[in-house]
Amino acid sequence: MRKKLFHKSPQKIGLPPGSLVHVGKKRVEKPKISLIDYDSANFIEREIESPEDCLSFFATSSVTWVNVDGLHEVKILERLGAGFDLHPLVLEDILNTGHRPKLEDYDSMLFLVLKALSYEEETGEIIPEQVSLVLGPTFVLTFQEWETGIFDGVRTRIRSHKGRVRSAGPDYLAYALLDAIVDNYYLVLGKISDQIDTLEEELLSEPTPATLNKLYHFKREMVLLRKVAWPLREIIASLQRSESSLVEEKTRVFLRDIFDHAFHVVDTVETFRDLLSGMLDLYLSQTSNRTNEVMKVLTIVATIFIPLTFIAGIYGMNFENMPELKWQWGYPTVWLLMAVAAIGMLLYFRKRRWF
Amino acid sequence: MRKKLFHKSPQKIGLPPGSLVHVGKKRVEKPKISLIDYDSANFIEREIESPEDCLSFFATSSVTWVNVDGLHEVKILERLGAGFDLHPLVLEDILNTGHRPKLEDYDSMLFLVLKALSYEEETGEIIPEQVSLVLGPTFVLTFQEWETGIFDGVRTRIRSHKGRVRSAGPDYLAYALLDAIVDNYYLVLGKISDQIDTLEEELLSEPTPATLNKLYHFKREMVLLRKVAWPLREIIASLQRSESSLVEEKTRVFLRDIFDHAFHVVDTVETFRDLLSGMLDLYLSQTSNRTNEVMKVLTIVATIFIPLTFIAGIYGMNFENMPELKWQWGYPTVWLLMAVAAIGMLLYFRKRRWF
Amino acid sequence: MRKKLFHKSPQKIGLPPGSLVHVGKKRVEKPKISLIDYDSANFIEREIESPEDCLSFFATSSVTWVNVDGLHEVKILERLGAGFDLHPLVLEDILNTGHRPKLEDYDSMLFLVLKALSYEEETGEIIPEQVSLVLGPTFVLTFQEWETGIFDGVRTRIRSHKGRVRSAGPDYLAYALLDAIVDNYYLVLGKISDQIDTLEEELLSEPTPATLNKLYHFKREMVLLRKVAWPLREIIASLQRSESSLVEEKTRVFLRDIFDHAFHVVDTVETFRDLLSGMLDLYLSQTSNRTNEVMKVLTIVATIFIPLTFIAGIYGMNFENMPELKWQWGYPTVWLLMAVAAIGMLLYFRKRRWF
Amino acid sequence: MRKKLFHKSPQKIGLPPGSLVHVGKKRVEKPKISLIDYDSANFIEREIESPEDCLSFFATSSVTWVNVDGLHEVKILERLGAGFDLHPLVLEDILNTGHRPKLEDYDSMLFLVLKALSYEEETGEIIPEQVSLVLGPTFVLTFQEWETGIFDGVRTRIRSHKGRVRSAGPDYLAYALLDAIVDNYYLVLGKISDQIDTLEEELLSEPTPATLNKLYHFKREMVLLRKVAWPLREIIASLQRSESSLVEEKTRVFLRDIFDHAFHVVDTVETFRDLLSGMLDLYLSQTSNRTNEVMKVLTIVATIFIPLTFIAGIYGMNFENMPELKWQWGYPTVWLLMAVAAIGMLLYFRKRRWF
Amino acid sequence: MRKKLFHKSPQKIGLPPGSLVHVGKKRVEKPKISLIDYDSANFIEREIESPEDCLSFFATSSVTWVNVDGLHEVKILERLGAGFDLHPLVLEDILNTGHRPKLEDYDSMLFLVLKALSYEEETGEIIPEQVSLVLGPTFVLTFQEWETGIFDGVRTRIRSHKGRVRSAGPDYLAYALLDAIVDNYYLVLGKISDQIDTLEEELLSEPTPATLNKLYHFKREMVLLRKVAWPLREIIASLQRSESSLVEEKTRVFLRDIFDHAFHVVDTVETFRDLLSGMLDLYLSQTSNRTNEVMKVLTIVATIFIPLTFIAGIYGMNFENMPELKWQWGYPTVWLLMAVAAIGMLLYFRKRRWF
Repeated sequence: MRKKLFHKSPQKIGLPPGSLVHVGKKRVEKPKISLIDYDSANFIEREIESPEDCLSFFATSSVTWVNVDGLHEVKILERLGAGFDLHPLVLEDILNTGHRPKLEDYDSMLFLVLKALSYEEETGEIIPEQVSLVLGPTFVLTFQEWETGIFDGVRTRIRSHKGRVRSAGPDYLAYALLDAIVDNYYLVLGKISDQIDTLEEELLSEPTPATLNKLYHFKREMVLLRKVAWPLREIIASLQRSESSLVEEKTRVFLRDIFDHAFHVVDTVETFRDLLSGMLDLYLSQTSNRTNEVMKVLTIVATIFIPLTFIAGIYGMNFENMPELKWQWGYPTVWLLMAVAAIGMLLYFRKRRWF
Repeated sequence: MRKKLFHKSPQKIGLPPGSLVHVGKKRVEKPKISLIDYDSANFIEREIESPEDCLSFFATSSVTWVNVDGLHEVKILERLGAGFDLHPLVLEDILNTGHRPKLEDYDSMLFLVLKALSYEEETGEIIPEQVSLVLGPTFVLTFQEWETGIFDGVRTRIRSHKGRVRSAGPDYLAYALLDAIVDNYYLVLGKISDQIDTLEEELLSEPTPATLNKLYHFKREMVLLRKVAWPLREIIASLQRSESSLVEEKTRVFLRDIFDHAFHVVDTVETFRDLLSGMLDLYLSQTSNRTNEVMKVLTIVATIFIPLTFIAGIYGMNFENMPELKWQWGYPTVWLLMAVAAIGMLLYFRKRRWF
Repeated sequence: MRKKLFHKSPQKIGLPPGSLVHVGKKRVEKPKISLIDYDSANFIEREIESPEDCLSFFATSSVTWVNVDGLHEVKILERLGAGFDLHPLVLEDILNTGHRPKLEDYDSMLFLVLKALSYEEETGEIIPEQVSLVLGPTFVLTFQEWETGIFDGVRTRIRSHKGRVRSAGPDYLAYALLDAIVDNYYLVLGKISDQIDTLEEELLSEPTPATLNKLYHFKREMVLLRKVAWPLREIIASLQRSESSLVEEKTRVFLRDIFDHAFHVVDTVETFRDLLSGMLDLYLSQTSNRTNEVMKVLTIVATIFIPLTFIAGIYGMNFENMPELKWQWGYPTVWLLMAVAAIGMLLYFRKRRWF
Repeated sequence: MRKKLFHKSPQKIGLPPGSLVHVGKKRVEKPKISLIDYDSANFIEREIESPEDCLSFFATSSVTWVNVDGLHEVKILERLGAGFDLHPLVLEDILNTGHRPKLEDYDSMLFLVLKALSYEEETGEIIPEQVSLVLGPTFVLTFQEWETGIFDGVRTRIRSHKGRVRSAGPDYLAYALLDAIVDNYYLVLGKISDQIDTLEEELLSEPTPATLNKLYHFKREMVLLRKVAWPLREIIASLQRSESSLVEEKTRVFLRDIFDHAFHVVDTVETFRDLLSGMLDLYLSQTSNRTNEVMKVLTIVATIFIPLTFIAGIYGMNFENMPELKWQWGYPTVWLLMAVAAIGMLLYFRKRRWF
Repeated sequence: MRKKLFHKSPQKIGLPPGSLVHVGKKRVEKPKISLIDYDSANFIEREIESPEDCLSFFATSSVTWVNVDGLHEVKILERLGAGFDLHPLVLEDILNTGHRPKLEDYDSMLFLVLKALSYEEETGEIIPEQVSLVLGPTFVLTFQEWETGIFDGVRTRIRSHKGRVRSAGPDYLAYALLDAIVDNYYLVLGKISDQIDTLEEELLSEPTPATLNKLYHFKREMVLLRKVAWPLREIIASLQRSESSLVEEKTRVFLRDIFDHAFHVVDTVETFRDLLSGMLDLYLSQTSNRTNEVMKVLTIVATIFIPLTFIAGIYGMNFENMPELKWQWGYPTVWLLMAVAAIGMLLYFRKRRWF
């Protein structure tokens, strides 16, 4: 089944703002809360049952990262929100998975809504998953619709004390998570790039109606991809420029780096759109060409044989008084006549360069 | 009957500005004025006969919300305008239902013209209704063309003291009403999204000329929807940024939230336009493909049988002197000749991959 | 005859700037100068022979409005220009009726070039007329190519002391005149809107090649309309924002109102363009569909009968040795064969959903 | 031969910047240097052999205008450049005739690169010529590829003391020269406008494949024209806004005037592009319509006669046992049958409104 | 094999930022490091084995230019990076050859990523090569994927003390290198311009399906070229405007010059795109025209002969009772009938201007 173009939430219409209703499909059985707490010296990783268990870590000055997979249990989010003092609109947006990517600055915290992508090889579809990220003074909260491996690389780097992440603050962690998401876009674009390459070869060698459907499919995916890629770029740009005290100066150079990547992603999506448009134009022109070729074959054959058949028809008539029929050389003469007509026609078509 | 593209008002041409003339269809028998007056402690709801009855409520510091359904009785609006001290141009714009959405800041009050949408399932048409909203220091006035249930949710919340609305000022009420209108856009977009999904499936499985008409219909609706959605976004943006003292600081975060929603609406309309354009391209290519297929069938059949018929015609001629006719193996030889010609043709078409 | 795309003035090339040459058609026999002079108490209306007659009114503090219909007598303009101290470039622009709409601020006066529209019902053409307006501290000058009724409503309001105009200054008069021009755009758009509605119905019910020509005609008119509507909006916007002391603060709210109208005009022109583009796409697709339908009928008939005719041709051959001809059941067998072939073909076409 | 799309200069690649190499065709035998030196009282006009002869005039406070026709003698330019103290990059740009129009402010002088147009009636091509203009405190230098009459009008006005030019400074002279160039654009646009008018009439009355080629030609010319018109507008705009002390305040109002003209030129080019696009769409639709018409004729004739021919074929068979052949009314019955079939077919086509 | 649309680097996903991994093809056997050190008096040119050998030159106040051809030996870059104190993100970007062109200001140095172009004559493909450039207070580092001659001209000028380069600082050297890269774009555009010219002639004289493929090829190349040309322009613009102390005031006028060139490049790419679009439209219209022509020939021949053949068929029937067959003038009458039908048909087609 195709993914939905638009997530509507009729059950929300009419509720006061800040009402917590999960909009989206229930994807996992039970939400999973995992916590990592670290500074350059210490490291704690734990699965958590009750949201309140996070709060003791929250109090310390070490960086606390709480990740929630699965959003359908509204109660859990409410309790987490109460613990970390999240604005009701933040909670509402986390739950509404059909949201447009955005960045909001609530002075004491930054709130980001993003789309992570995954690519389904079979159907060739890009599946967006909403990832919400809250960056506070000593903590980062992330919320995902289901468990994906998207942040595994970051976790490994924290565990193994690799790179800069253990010695830096929560803003660097947020950057590392954003970087993981943008890297993911690269992966998906790489796969699509291969497919478009293959499609182009197919188009240039032997296009079929199936080629058209694939073309349409990729154009459609690009429309939807564009819808998430542009705001991603904007968000990272405004994060980099933001004057929030939550983002340290030395982290900004890294944000500039992923801004470049996000720009590259948008650029590539636009390039793909252009290429696919060009390919559709080519397809249409090829179809016109082929119709033209088919028509020429029909016209040549019909134009040569229809008059000849007419001549044969004439001498198939049964009039009693048809002198030609009795002539000795009538039959060969008719053959000659036909040959002349056919050759004349062929010369005409040759002159017009029809074959 | 289709809705009008453009509301013209020839009766207004030449009148001085501020002349009160109702432009639009008379949709209800008698305008209905309903008043709600509340603060966190008290709540009064009343239907009102004479516009002057509102003014006693207007004088108090509690929030007064007057809603008028039906705009054709100009007198009523004039008296209401006099009571609440509205600028003549405001009254003129309220009455002119063909107006472009806009926000105007008259220092002592803010004036908004908006379009609420409803979706007619049968015809698949989006019907815009003009809603005007005046936000004053202690009151909100709303004007609708006819009675729709669009604000019922807000009314219920006020009555039942649910959410934040009872404890907040008129700016929050205005926000809640705007939110109700934007939610309505979501509802309509959700329905259209379903229809476009269905249309796409139809297009990919079995397109007919009716599919084309539907495609055209939706493209047209998107053109008109876009015309109301873009200004909606602008209005909410300038409301949020406006320095009017009528909008309290703490309400702005909520306005930012519906700005996001309005942005999402615009985004979705643009995405639908892109998708529908892609679908039209697909339709055109499919038609070309089908014409090509039809041509191939005709060409194959005609190209094989026309020469054969010619051969048959030859030996149907009545020349006295046709030696082949008397040969013992003449008839089978002709069959053989025909078979060779037909097979040759078939091989040619196969080589060209026509079937 | 079609209106010109572009007014060129070869006679002007090479002349020094400020040279007064009338560029455009001579539309009236003799220019007509009419003067209205009023304040809230007094009102004088007069037709004037010699431009110098205006100057006595010019000296008073009452508002003086001089309107000139017909621009081909350069002398008259020169004398008027001298009297009111107009810059030579202003006079040059008034005379050059092919000018782009614009606003120029000459400190002591504001100069506007605008296009008023009229709609010729027969040909469906929009005829632009250049209207120039000079706003000075106590006067307004207007210049039209020929006598149109466009300002009649304003005149009536001044005469009959209706609305605000008599009690306000020349800036309000200028506003009222601009409003009359913009109202005129509404009128024209209303008529075009009706025509496009009709065209759309024609397109959806029974399109003909004439429909295509009408479509083209309206697209063309929209290109030309757009060329005058966009600068109109810009001009009113910069007039409203201008810091000229000639525009009083209280008039700006009215200018904001006609800015909204001008914006609406531009919006509507763009919407019409979008709709017409959509209609052209529909037309093209319908043509493709119809060609496809025609091809199917031809292919079905030809594909069924050409092979049958071939079979008949076979048994019309005159070979002496054709055993089938002598069989008792030969003839019915051939009929049977033909019926089987025809039915098979029909089933094939049915399977392909060709009918 | 068609003009080049792009002037490349392989001989320049790798040279240090400021290297003087003439890029372009040699158009005149010998460069011609003409000098005009004037103030309101005196006037000297002279043809000059050696560039150094200019320098004595350069020293005086009167306005000195040196015009060079023909750029291929690099030496001459070098000596002139040395005399007037031009930056090496200015000289390089003057010589490179494939340059993009631009304005550069070298404090002590302003440097403009522009394209003057001429229109070749036979081929319908617009030929751009590069004109460089240097405006100094007391002089104006102009450089043209060959001798065109483009500045003749200005020369005449200086000689005959007509207009403002003699009493104004070099900035006004530069303005007058720019005005002459922009006037030239008007002339070319006027001619193209006429051609497009003619083409449109041809398209609406009797389009041929030659019409298509003309359409393509004009679209192409518009692409190239646009490439020179847009920068022209930008240049004049930044000249008008520039804070260079070389442009006096009172000249700016004149620059605003040619800015309007340049804007009009750009506007007109865009309008022409829109109109030509519309005409191409019309052409394509007409072709589709015509193909459809041709198909209908073929289908009607073939669909009526192919079945009739089949019936005739049936009774042309030579089976011994064909009872119908012996019936008295067999022949008329067949005619009846055929008539019924033909009329049925015709009614069917009529119902489908094919004719 | 076609070049890749998109360089993906799956091996990088999940690594911490600043990880040095070479992304791209290994193009040379062994990286080659060449060093030039000069001031106006001295000049040293040397091939270098170990990156550390550069550092002694780095210490002096003369300009040091280190060029690296071949990027796959990460170690070498790491050591060079350490020596010149490059930021890890700079090294990462140098190695990632799929990067978007960009300019980054690291206070103590400027970092540029650019694409140099080369044109493969056989395949008609534009091959972009990533060139990274680091501008420091006394040095310039350049990194190329393989050894191209692109900077040879600059080297020669330094060696031979030609032009300004020896007497200027490293910013002028950076400018000269950028100029060499932009000159290279000109070369490639010049070649493409020739090809497009040839293609246009082919299109206007005798278009074939191969023409379509070439058209598609160039459109595709333009999409990809545009993707590198736009950022090039932006980079040079921000370099010129940058307030970095590394760029001296007197160098900015030269940067303005290559900005003009880069602008010209972008302009030309856009113009080529427009021209190619126009050519594709022309191709499509020509195909439609040709199909129409083919159809006309078929229709004329078929429409004339099919009815005639029917008439012949009639009198080929074997009814016993066919009085016409026995008429003396039956046969000539039939001929007459046929001639009338044929001439009528021809007149009809002539009237419709089909031939």
